[in-house]
Amino acid sequence: MELKDLAPRLLSKERANGDIDPDVLTNVLRDGKAANDRRKQLVQVIARHPVLSDRDMMFRSHTERYAFGLKKAFHYVKLLEEGGYTDAHDRWILYKTMGEPLGIDVHRAMFIPTLENQGDDEQRAKWLPLAKQFKILGAYAQTELGHGSNVQGIETVATFDKATQEFIVDSPTLTSRKWWPGGLGKTATHAIVHARLTLDGQDVGVQAFIVQLRSTHDHMPLPGIEVGDIGPKVGFNAVDNGYCAFHRIRIPRKNMLMRHAKVLPDGTFVKPQSDKLVYLTMVHIRAYLIKTLAMHMGAAATICTRFSAARIQGRTPDLKGEFQVLDYQNQQHKLFPRLAISYAAHFAGSSLIELHDSAFDVIKEGKQRFGAKLAELHAVSSGLKAWLAEHVSDGIETCRRLCGGHGFTQASNLPHIFAEVVGAITYEGTSDVLTQQHGRYLLKTLASLPSNEKSTKFLSQVARYSDSKLRCNAETRQDFGNLDLLLEVFQVRAARVVLELAGHMNAANNDGNACMVLMTRASTSHAELILLEAFVQGVRSVPSGREQQSVAHLCSLFGAWLIAQSLGDFRQHDYLSTHQADLVREQIVHLLPVIRKNCVLLTDAWDFSDFELNSAIGRYDGDIYRALVKRAADEPLNKTQVPKDYEKYLKPLIQSSL
Amino acid sequence: MELKDLAPRLLSKERANGDIDPDVLTNVLRDGKAANDRRKQLVQVIARHPVLSDRDMMFRSHTERYAFGLKKAFHYVKLLEEGGYTDAHDRWILYKTMGEPLGIDVHRAMFIPTLENQGDDEQRAKWLPLAKQFKILGAYAQTELGHGSNVQGIETVATFDKATQEFIVDSPTLTSRKWWPGGLGKTATHAIVHARLTLDGQDVGVQAFIVQLRSTHDHMPLPGIEVGDIGPKVGFNAVDNGYCAFHRIRIPRKNMLMRHAKVLPDGTFVKPQSDKLVYLTMVHIRAYLIKTLAMHMGAAATICTRFSAARIQGRTPDLKGEFQVLDYQNQQHKLFPRLAISYAAHFAGSSLIELHDSAFDVIKEGKQRFGAKLAELHAVSSGLKAWLAEHVSDGIETCRRLCGGHGFTQASNLPHIFAEVVGAITYEGTSDVLTQQHGRYLLKTLASLPSNEKSTKFLSQVARYSDSKLRCNAETRQDFGNLDLLLEVFQVRAARVVLELAGHMNAANNDGNACMVLMTRASTSHAELILLEAFVQGVRSVPSGREQQSVAHLCSLFGAWLIAQSLGDFRQHDYLSTHQADLVREQIVHLLPVIRKNCVLLTDAWDFSDFELNSAIGRYDGDIYRALVKRAADEPLNKTQVPKDYEKYLKPLIQSSL
Repeated sequence: MELKDLAPRLLSKERANGDIDPDVLTNVLRDGKAANDRRKQLVQVIARHPVLSDRDMMFRSHTERYAFGLKKAFHYVKLLEEGGYTDAHDRWILYKTMGEPLGIDVHRAMFIPTLENQGDDEQRAKWLPLAKQFKILGAYAQTELGHGSNVQGIETVATFDKATQEFIVDSPTLTSRKWWPGGLGKTATHAIVHARLTLDGQDVGVQAFIVQLRSTHDHMPLPGIEVGDIGPKVGFNAVDNGYCAFHRIRIPRKNMLMRHAKVLPDGTFVKPQSDKLVYLTMVHIRAYLIKTLAMHMGAAATICTRFSAARIQGRTPDLKGEFQVLDYQNQQHKLFPRLAISYAAHFAGSSLIELHDSAFDVIKEGKQRFGAKLAELHAVSSGLKAWLAEHVSDGIETCRRLCGGHGFTQASNLPHIFAEVVGAITYEGTSDVLTQQHGRYLLKTLASLPSNEKSTKFLSQVARYSDSKLRCNAETRQDFGNLDLLLEVFQVRAARVVLELAGHMNAANNDGNACMVLMTRASTSHAELILLEAFVQGVRSVPSGREQQSVAHLCSLFGAWLIAQSLGDFRQHDYLSTHQADLVREQIVHLLPVIRKNCVLLTDAWDFSDFELNSAIGRYDGDIYRALVKRAADEPLNKTQVPKDYEKYLKPLIQSSL
Repeated sequence: MELKDLAPRLLSKERANGDIDPDVLTNVLRDGKAANDRRKQLVQVIARHPVLSDRDMMFRSHTERYAFGLKKAFHYVKLLEEGGYTDAHDRWILYKTMGEPLGIDVHRAMFIPTLENQGDDEQRAKWLPLAKQFKILGAYAQTELGHGSNVQGIETVATFDKATQEFIVDSPTLTSRKWWPGGLGKTATHAIVHARLTLDGQDVGVQAFIVQLRSTHDHMPLPGIEVGDIGPKVGFNAVDNGYCAFHRIRIPRKNMLMRHAKVLPDGTFVKPQSDKLVYLTMVHIRAYLIKTLAMHMGAAATICTRFSAARIQGRTPDLKGEFQVLDYQNQQHKLFPRLAISYAAHFAGSSLIELHDSAFDVIKEGKQRFGAKLAELHAVSSGLKAWLAEHVSDGIETCRRLCGGHGFTQASNLPHIFAEVVGAITYEGTSDVLTQQHGRYLLKTLASLPSNEKSTKFLSQVARYSDSKLRCNAETRQDFGNLDLLLEVFQVRAARVVLELAGHMNAANNDGNACMVLMTRASTSHAELILLEAFVQGVRSVPSGREQQSVAHLCSLFGAWLIAQSLGDFRQHDYLSTHQADLVREQIVHLLPVIRKNCVLLTDAWDFSDFELNSAIGRYDGDIYRALVKRAADEPLNKTQVPKDYEKYLKPLIQSSL
């Protein structure tokens, strides 16, 4: 049989060999059947749209992608209006399905929510309708050329002029220009600008202001505004990430966002009340980011699994046939843990959303100790975001490499997914900052023991696990398939790293930088524990049966694989013996064929359409070779047989008329 | 002081704080002063050339990059002719300095060398002058849509027609079309095509043929040739990686490359004699690839180190100042091991070239046992290539992430370096294939012990280290700074993993796939030992003094860091105790500030010009902020204040005339 026809059959065979019903798991991963049906309807709306279904971004430069992105933005807004899509979640799905963020990305994701959260009633009444009807387009201008993570270091200044009741916004230095904000370069008419506010010569800290950048009549930058695009990037190339310098421009007093801090007409500064809800908003954003990361990981794992099943390469020992790429132990050993990460991230994201919602209720009821609960939530979300942004990015890239040369082509879509995801390591809190926040929180909570002993599940165990003579009591490989035993292993490891950190911090007079590597290890240890806990809880939420067992195998692999990745940690104080370490490695190798049985179905459960995956090698039907040939035909170079400028540059070479 | 002026000063300060002379190390890294001076002259030739100095690839799509690449190729050839650059190494430097491979890449790197190595005298006389004068442009067409790593699986067929003394070359299936060869899509007029040869119905295996693809008059594809570009990729976007299908085209008998195998006019097949030199050629190619990887790692480490020194971010604990990014322990902990990898790879590449040259001499003299020596060289080069392609790619990406948002912009050039390097994991032997070859070699040599005991340095030690009761005798942190002790630690670990593999293979009836994960671990363990050996030897080749000490610190960090990365391996059988594991981690943290003292000078030693680095944030003078602003001005979107199609797509939104 020809390879092109064999490929689809091999993939079908994998499905036939499995024994689970992917729909059961789809309901778990996609928040129930109703939500998933709605999602699929919306995906179809995009897939059938003459413009929004565009999938040719791979052929375009940044400049061209931005230009086409404007067209998409226009049709997207038109679709929302004409289709009557008012539900925020529907809109989010429609937007995400387009497959690349656009110039209006920050307008919807940051500008409008910030107006909602930080504008006072008057401001909300004035600005929100304009923004929601796209009569103004907004950017969120915090980061500067010289400062990102350290918001307190930003240099843009706002000075209050009592006489005119205006703020003068100025960029006093080269490095004070805003740099990076999405949509700022060419799209936005307005921006929420963070600037250091001076009142009567008094610095009252960084505040947020609404600044008009461009005329709403002809889109020209207003006087005193210097604005442009910062150029091509790894990802987001349809977005005009921009720069902006303010040359003593004036805005009305009422353009400072005044829900929290205020400046009164006489120049009095009213300090903001402590607003715990800001933290809660961050937790909420991160929970959704984590669920998005889970989906991207699921998409990459789906593409890679299908390709590995459909692709044969390399002679079998009898020299008679060829292995499916999926047959190789190394392929399984690299791929399946990433499939497991997609499930782990999904469960962790869902669990974070639940915790957020219950914290929200507690806060609304004004109950005691919500501060501690919030601090925990915020810290955990920091650690999880840092861990997942890195491991999902690396996991997507691993999947790409596992597809060999075909993964290297844009036709696989894996390079695009990676490029759009990997920025998550940097934005919404750089990993180094987040792991330190998380580590500091763990230390702080540890210090408050035993008085606060029950504040968190994890730390209540610290005392129990701190005895360095404690040994893991696993005796067989199978013991490492016991999820409760695995959990205990991760609890012990996290407890000990945090205790070690506390000792080091003490010895270093609380100099965090001198213990930063260890603090990162503490954050990682705790994040992995939280992920495993969420995964185990997730397994138990799946209806019992083969599907549950199948997810349990993934969970089991996830745990064993994490142990093997950081074996030194787990062997500290010989908690795991050298023999137990061997058992863990045996367990990993043992689980690979077990998981392989259902691996295609476990990825099918993510229920991505071919349109969403946009991958010639990740098609549901396994018809990868025809798809690759078809995609290559779209390359603009193939429009002519002889390349442009042949006469100028190739002919003189070949005909030696140099 | 303004940040833009502070940045250059901070970088100068780092240089002033160091106490080594980078020129001493430049001589080591750049093969002596004379070679380096010549290299710098040649770099200047490109930097001053009106076309070849182009650095705007970041703004272009694949289609545009290919088009501009033709222009570059034309001017490059013109430069060679007009400048009289005939030396192969000079040409290589000129070519590499352009910063991206072009459509003629494979013509120079594969087509011409293959004619030289596999053409008989008559063929060489006919084809080489044409190729060297660019009257024909060649591709190397082995890989197909359906087959890459498994060359024996390729489907293109050649059938000998005795009557006409021709071969009929045909692509019988969709998947038999050639897929991926560089330059094949739009540039090449000819290709060396690998096809399965049939003589009188007898399959005699895969052979290489010269096939003309396009007319040398008008560049149109010849009848029966279907050819085009496969589309955009992660890297190599100035190259037209292509596809080609042959529809029963005919070529003369003399177009089969006949230096080794032959087909006589009567259709008799003359089998090739075993040609050990083919292996030697592969070793040679890999040695240079390893040195290229070293340079890319050096370039990325240089950019990241300079940026980290010039950039401040994050308040110091006294809240009075800000840390240089280089101050952070995490930054040092991630960056310095990658700087160390650049040195390790350089020394390993150089050592491989020396081994290659001495093997070449041995073979020429016809001495005994060159077979064993060659097998060792080939296996070691496989393992090193696999390890370094992966770790250098990941190292570059780590450096990019360490530069935060500024690393994410193409202006940093780190994304471009990554994209051009990461393909090395796949091409010239996919990692999975290479590590298996390497692992199999280790097993084979192990099996031949003790009779062949002295054949390799490493395996002669196996017996000594196989005693599982052996313990590392390090007692203090300082002991892990002893390079001989470090070497022994790596020897023990490699010996034990290989022995473990032998045991598992035995138990698995020699089923390699059932032991593939462990075999990969064996390859990694041995590759890391070889790297460390080359590094230690390299340290000893540096003139004694502070420079040597400084490189020794890097070597020491490299060893300790590798131990920490795979601590589980080193703790197997408790060879390292839990206390010793702590000492290794202490040693890493101890070395960071020691290396920091000279880190900028250690990267300066790579002696990259700003032109070569092409990075706004990696400038020698640290003037990063002005450079970023200047680079952004080049973005085509900034040519107009109002973006193209504003009237069509933005105005209707903003003015609600939807």
